[in-house]
Amino acid sequence: MTATAPRDLVERFRAGDRAALARLISFVENGKAAGMRAMGDLYGSTGTAYVVGITGPPGAGKSTLTNALIRGYRARGQTVAVVAVDPSSALTGGATLGDRIRMLDNFDDPGVYIRSMATRGEMGGLSIGVGAVVHLLDAYGFDMILIETVGVGQDEVDVGELADTTLLIQVPGTGDSIQAIKAGVLEIADVLVVNKADLPGANDMVRDLRMMLRLSESRPWTPPIVETVASEHRNTDALIDKLDQHRQFLEDSGEGRIRRARRDRREVVRLARRQLTREIEAVASDAGLDDLFTSLANRDADPITVASVVARRTVDRFRQDG
Amino acid sequence: MTATAPRDLVERFRAGDRAALARLISFVENGKAAGMRAMGDLYGSTGTAYVVGITGPPGAGKSTLTNALIRGYRARGQTVAVVAVDPSSALTGGATLGDRIRMLDNFDDPGVYIRSMATRGEMGGLSIGVGAVVHLLDAYGFDMILIETVGVGQDEVDVGELADTTLLIQVPGTGDSIQAIKAGVLEIADVLVVNKADLPGANDMVRDLRMMLRLSESRPWTPPIVETVASEHRNTDALIDKLDQHRQFLEDSGEGRIRRARRDRREVVRLARRQLTREIEAVASDAGLDDLFTSLANRDADPITVASVVARRTVDRFRQDG
Repeated sequence: MTATAPRDLVERFRAGDRAALARLISFVENGKAAGMRAMGDLYGSTGTAYVVGITGPPGAGKSTLTNALIRGYRARGQTVAVVAVDPSSALTGGATLGDRIRMLDNFDDPGVYIRSMATRGEMGGLSIGVGAVVHLLDAYGFDMILIETVGVGQDEVDVGELADTTLLIQVPGTGDSIQAIKAGVLEIADVLVVNKADLPGANDMVRDLRMMLRLSESRPWTPPIVETVASEHRNTDALIDKLDQHRQFLEDSGEGRIRRARRDRREVVRLARRQLTREIEAVASDAGLDDLFTSLANRDADPITVASVVARRTVDRFRQDG
Repeated sequence: MTATAPRDLVERFRAGDRAALARLISFVENGKAAGMRAMGDLYGSTGTAYVVGITGPPGAGKSTLTNALIRGYRARGQTVAVVAVDPSSALTGGATLGDRIRMLDNFDDPGVYIRSMATRGEMGGLSIGVGAVVHLLDAYGFDMILIETVGVGQDEVDVGELADTTLLIQVPGTGDSIQAIKAGVLEIADVLVVNKADLPGANDMVRDLRMMLRLSESRPWTPPIVETVASEHRNTDALIDKLDQHRQFLEDSGEGRIRRARRDRREVVRLARRQLTREIEAVASDAGLDDLFTSLANRDADPITVASVVARRTVDRFRQDG
């Protein structure tokens, strides 16, 4: 690869070349500075896509629901990009969420783009990488961007920081694993879906969710609960209507502008932190500090003091580099 | 609270005052600089405790097993501190892991100390806060420190960065939720426990785990698999023997020294990153940048460029403050 390749890619991207889109996404995914610079160059073309985050526990039917949403949006004439965030694929090498969506329907529709991303557990990695990919898809011109992520731990909260509207899927009868995460995740949900609503226990689950919503802090928007059977596309059009209503609410109430401003600020903090973290790691693995780390190992120094030395050196180094 | 209180607490801590230990832990947990400084002051007394991380999915019986380990170590004359890390308690306000351990046996034994900590989902928060608390417990003189954490997402990987020996608990018949996380977590496990080994499917699980271990990269230490019924203390002494064997392996092979050095370096990186992150957040919420964020919202600036400005201002500010 020559040094000018990313610039060529940006031009090809602007001309609508899908291979260029895929290449730039790969650059971003692999943490290459050129990918982030390209995203920066293309950022002026963003701002028209609407971003829906889709999260929920494993087995809730996220891929099936995503598939149904793609169909529904396409039927309304909108183009759709999907970012399927897969925390395990980097480790297992198995089928990714994106593969699973593709397997459901053989999408050869040019109005649909599906991409899997592995997170690799890097802190802030999901948000930085996926956030940049969302900007690329937005700049490319997709009307709808769906971010699908497995609800384990931090990732599902992060998706709430990237999406305009966050959809939380639950399924009846999954008991205590939901119990463990429900409270925190409920706060980020704008629309609740009880999928596999033909299973026993669906009514109980809807009632429980309704009660939890009543107990939680009152908000100007009360998340609706939509019962779907995504595998049969049952009620998924009603779900799209609810997503549209939330979008309208965000616009009418001014809440959308507030959310976007908050999201911008957080993205900038994450990007700045990543810049400085890379410097910190470089400084901390510098052989020049070996004596200091030996002192730490011998308890002649403490981690707070050593960290202050590292922070100061990082700052000095950053200024020199800049 | 007067400004000198933390220093008094350090003196009382050194004299063995348990209330002072609890107060300093609270300081650390609440992210107070005074708590971290006290930890730094006391760091010279650390280095004698042995740290075991205990992780696994919800319902695997971690609290019950922790309880059995406390009993076992006490029977051998060792003092035990437990840090029960509870990702949900900050949100739900419900019973914490620590409460659950205490409910199992009414510990009024002065050789046992049990403490719950909430993580609040802050990135790197588990490692920084729990790491500092482990140092305090070590300095206080506990022989064994057990860190118990629910295995959801990033936290279980983090516990591997804090512990000398990491114990992963599984239970028969929990199917695909384990599937999703097993691969990554297996890499950090030094000892595997199949708990509730009297349930059907235990043999299958042991066989599956053995196969996964064979398929994974060969390591100088092969994690043993111990079948327990923790609620009946069945085989928990054999488990303690395995933990002792791993400790011996770490010492004999030199791997323990390597791990500790790596852990020190990571802790320093985390602490330095936290110092700089706080500055970044302060800079990013400074009204002086409002125009820049307005440009970002209007797509006249891009996030990469704005982040560079924030990083540079952070560095300038850090130097002025220092």
